Amino acid sequence: MTAVPGNEKSPIAMELARKQKSISVAEFFEKNRHMLGFDSLPRCLITCIKEAVDNSLDACEEASILPDIYIRVRKVDDRLVSIIIEDNGPGIQKDVLPRVFGKLLYGSRFHAIRQSRGQQGIGISAAVLYGQLTSGKPARITSKIDPRLPAYMYELKIDTETNEPRIISERVDEFFTSRGTRIELEMEAAYVRGKQSVLEYLRNTAIVNPHARITFVDPLGEKTTFERASDVLPKQPVEIKPHPRGIELGTLIKMMQSAEHGKLSTFLNSEFAKVGGYTAENICKEASIDPSADPVELAKDIDAVKRLMAAFQKIKVMAPPKDCLSPITEDLLKKGVVQNHRVDFIATSSRPVNASRGNPFLVEALIAYGGDIQPEGRIDIVRFANRVPLMYQQGACAITHAIERINWKHYNLEQSKGAKLPSGPIMIMVHVASTNVPFTSESKDAIADVPELIDEVELAVRQAARELSRFLSEQKKAGEARKKIKLFEAYTKEVAQALEDLTGKPASVVEAKLTDALNKKYAKFIEDAALPETPVKDGGA
Amino acid sequence: MTAVPGNEKSPIAMELARKQKSISVAEFFEKNRHMLGFDSLPRCLITCIKEAVDNSLDACEEASILPDIYIRVRKVDDRLVSIIIEDNGPGIQKDVLPRVFGKLLYGSRFHAIRQSRGQQGIGISAAVLYGQLTSGKPARITSKIDPRLPAYMYELKIDTETNEPRIISERVDEFFTSRGTRIELEMEAAYVRGKQSVLEYLRNTAIVNPHARITFVDPLGEKTTFERASDVLPKQPVEIKPHPRGIELGTLIKMMQSAEHGKLSTFLNSEFAKVGGYTAENICKEASIDPSADPVELAKDIDAVKRLMAAFQKIKVMAPPKDCLSPITEDLLKKGVVQNHRVDFIATSSRPVNASRGNPFLVEALIAYGGDIQPEGRIDIVRFANRVPLMYQQGACAITHAIERINWKHYNLEQSKGAKLPSGPIMIMVHVASTNVPFTSESKDAIADVPELIDEVELAVRQAARELSRFLSEQKKAGEARKKIKLFEAYTKEVAQALEDLTGKPASVVEAKLTDALNKKYAKFIEDAALPETPVKDGGA
Repeated sequence: MTAVPGNEKSPIAMELARKQKSISVAEFFEKNRHMLGFDSLPRCLITCIKEAVDNSLDACEEASILPDIYIRVRKVDDRLVSIIIEDNGPGIQKDVLPRVFGKLLYGSRFHAIRQSRGQQGIGISAAVLYGQLTSGKPARITSKIDPRLPAYMYELKIDTETNEPRIISERVDEFFTSRGTRIELEMEAAYVRGKQSVLEYLRNTAIVNPHARITFVDPLGEKTTFERASDVLPKQPVEIKPHPRGIELGTLIKMMQSAEHGKLSTFLNSEFAKVGGYTAENICKEASIDPSADPVELAKDIDAVKRLMAAFQKIKVMAPPKDCLSPITEDLLKKGVVQNHRVDFIATSSRPVNASRGNPFLVEALIAYGGDIQPEGRIDIVRFANRVPLMYQQGACAITHAIERINWKHYNLEQSKGAKLPSGPIMIMVHVASTNVPFTSESKDAIADVPELIDEVELAVRQAARELSRFLSEQKKAGEARKKIKLFEAYTKEVAQALEDLTGKPASVVEAKLTDALNKKYAKFIEDAALPETPVKDGGA
Repeated sequence: MTAVPGNEKSPIAMELARKQKSISVAEFFEKNRHMLGFDSLPRCLITCIKEAVDNSLDACEEASILPDIYIRVRKVDDRLVSIIIEDNGPGIQKDVLPRVFGKLLYGSRFHAIRQSRGQQGIGISAAVLYGQLTSGKPARITSKIDPRLPAYMYELKIDTETNEPRIISERVDEFFTSRGTRIELEMEAAYVRGKQSVLEYLRNTAIVNPHARITFVDPLGEKTTFERASDVLPKQPVEIKPHPRGIELGTLIKMMQSAEHGKLSTFLNSEFAKVGGYTAENICKEASIDPSADPVELAKDIDAVKRLMAAFQKIKVMAPPKDCLSPITEDLLKKGVVQNHRVDFIATSSRPVNASRGNPFLVEALIAYGGDIQPEGRIDIVRFANRVPLMYQQGACAITHAIERINWKHYNLEQSKGAKLPSGPIMIMVHVASTNVPFTSESKDAIADVPELIDEVELAVRQAARELSRFLSEQKKAGEARKKIKLFEAYTKEVAQALEDLTGKPASVVEAKLTDALNKKYAKFIEDAALPETPVKDGGA
């Protein structure tokens, strides 16, 4: 141990203070790029494409355009790939474009309370950051906002020390369609096949976005197109006010501080979803606060704000509105699975809108069984959040944790001792739609263990599991009935002969009667239960 | 579908552009506080304490002070708890204090390449942010940097729109010791017992920081003290230059751009760890670049930089220095386990320093078996990163994933079909020490799946597992030998009698000879193998 520095002239604290400095968010994420989904080489490729496709889909929907997205990946050398993602979206206006792609925490959807894929204003600039870090090259973005205007091209990098875009070059450019955006990047990444691949990500994206047409050209030049399955755009989610249930004290104080209305009751009525004039009065009464009190003044009195919070929980406020969300719908979930799999059974469920920390959300689930679903190994869990497939971090996700909380033996499924999941040919699909999906990290691959959310996922999965359980139990009964019939059939002849000997009735007559009785007794089971040979049994809806 | 907006006067892009805006990092994390470890109520409490204790331990070590840390949790009401964390560290100088606690991404350890607990300059300000969000109250921080100077107290909040501290009040204050920092917070949180509890976190912290004295007072006023097990401070990790192996192209370009030396060889020699003059010349030769070339000019030629990168991989450079790391050591890991458990077997391993993306790291592992370790349910995985216990997100962690990659049947352990982990009374402890631990998120609870890192964890665990496998195989042999002896013993008398009848030799003599032969044959197994009744068998080192 060295000398205690407090006894010296200058306290060690002064020495330490000199090292304190601000860290730019770009520097932070350059060092922690794995938090953004840039860790292994195959994941880097998927993350980049995912961020670009998310943006394209969001922008197309906001502009009521049926999305047409083109993705191409090419090998540059042993280490680097080049990626192009192009859409037919509304385009990005010249003066904001450099920041959209060249500044982290810059975006249009962060403050809006409605379902969207992108929320953080990080994703695509993270891809630009990772690209320049590993290839040393700028990103090239071309965008055209109107058929009557020329397209514009920027080559840009992110200045990590300031988190501002640095424009390398810019010019008026060609763009082959009337409107859209193209991004070209070079980065260290790897193209792989299999479960965690670009193709699989795009296939799942197509399932939950049937209004999109997606074309992919792989490094060997092979082209895959996921054609549009529907020409109807999903209903555009509506932006809403925060719901009083689940709002945080600090957020409420901030809202009150910037209130423009002189009266608390008016403030409540106009700034919150589902709070009408009558409810507002009731809340004030419950909190023992004068409805005409000034919110800005009131914000200084923490006890009053706390009473207001308590009243939010006590006074009945209608559930948050559903139109800020855009569920996939049970029908579409089912269609997506049936298009890609042959299954023996399928059930879906959909939960009502709930709220967590003031954010409305809802859960949809699907369970499929049998058919071509692999019976060996880990069961298939397919996760979606706001119509985006979640490809990584399954073990860290609230969806997985909710499924693991269920005792699957109660649902007629096998579950080994100590195993958290059931075994067998099962696929569980869950979609969480929310105005603010609580992802565990900026890479948006796993949903955090928020209690209300896990509960809802569990309820949704259980609901579908009950249908499956019934199906399996019927199947079991039918199987047993068949066994009994077979056993019986094997002895009918002898029994009939014995009865002929005893009663004198001809064996053929006795045999016919016996077979008839047997069929009557077990017909129910055999007809009710869908057996593996029969077509899909729809347990849902 | 509404009308296509491109046909209207103003393109939709202009409408969308108006919504684009910057998001402050504080706003971002206020909305995404779960990314910082503030999700469930019990976790919020642990996260807050963990961030404060991390800071205290780092600061004490930087100032060569044996840490003495006091933590108290009290219930305020049904929703809120108040938390105090106080240390005897060097204190924080008045002019930097508000930003240390009231600004995210502000710190002293972000740019330094050496092992430390805090790296990001986010942790403690995240606790302040969460506190003000849920309690509406400011954090109160008191610090004293020198016995001869007065202590100073600040009450502060974070202005989330600007990510700057807002000072609510400040004054000269009392502080009961000669030096140190105290933080007082109020927040929504819950105190629980069990595996994921404050007490368990502190116990594990004490195990890997035996030089610290930690006192905890729980909400019932019950006091627990983890006394110092050692009066020796761990060797302070030394700050180093980046290692050429694993550095990224973009980082290299940035370094070259700000090079102050006119010559490439001098730049390589002075800015990288383990690159001497001779190695620098070799690198230049391999890259076909003139050693006297100007790095700043060279940075503009991407092909040259790429050749330099390739040369970094080809030319042999010594492994990164170890003194930037502070391993727990195998001995201390073992001591920690033995102090808290009775076990039948224990083995440790420690891997040499490796580098990932230019960051030196090393892995230490321990496997304990039998004794009071629970044989039922999931096996115990105890994870540490830079001497900090990782309490949450086990399923998302590279340590867990590395353990899951191992086929445990090869190591004489049971592993059910489909199970990722072995079963039985097993505890696996892993410590990753790194100059930059790649956490999956800002909450620092799980390590990202960086390939080099998973590989090293797997190697370390396998090394200890081989010892365990030997022990289990010996134990099995000894068990079988005992069975045989018992079987033999049961018949010795009869055999001896039969032999007496046949040969005329007295049964007692024959019996003694038989017993003797038996003992000789099986002695080896019985002595070698430690059986459950025997004391700890140390398989490591």
